[in-house]
Amino acid sequence: MAEIKYEIQENIGTLGDSSKGWTKELNLISWNGRDPKYDIRDWAPEHSKMGKGITLSHEELKKLKAILNEMEL
Amino acid sequence: MAEIKYEIQENIGTLGDSSKGWTKELNLISWNGRDPKYDIRDWAPEHSKMGKGITLSHEELKKLKAILNEMEL
Repeated sequence: MAEIKYEIQENIGTLGDSSKGWTKELNLISWNGRDPKYDIRDWAPEHSKMGKGITLSHEELKKLKAILNEMEL
Repeated sequence: MAEIKYEIQENIGTLGDSSKGWTKELNLISWNGRDPKYDIRDWAPEHSKMGKGITLSHEELKKLKAILNEMEL
C-alpha cells in the first residue's frame, strides 16, 4: 500500500469537537517532506487517525480570512 | 449508485483558482434537503463537478474566523 508521510508542524487551533472525540483542527502540515500547507481536517484523539479535510495555501487562507471578516457570524 | 442531492444556497466567496479552471470556494450548501452548512471545496467550472472538501457548522466557521484573526497572514 502507498504511504503518506506527514508532519504536523504547528497545531494552530481547534474549530470544534464531533462525536467519538474527533476534533476539527487547523494545522500547518508538511506532506511527504514538502513545504508545509495549512490544513483543516478531522482528527481522532491524539491524531491517531485522520479524516477528510482540505489543504490551503497561504494565499487561500488569507483570502478566507478576508471573506469571513465580511460576514456576520 | 447512491446519489447525493445538494443545492448551493449561497456562493459566499472564492478562495483561489487551481489548475484546469477549478476554484476553491466557500459556499452555503444544503445536502439531501437538510439544513444548509458552510462548505469549503474545490469545484470544476460552473460547478459541474465537485472535488474534496469539508463542511463546517456555523459555530465551527465562527471559531475559524476567530483563529484566523489571531494569526499574522
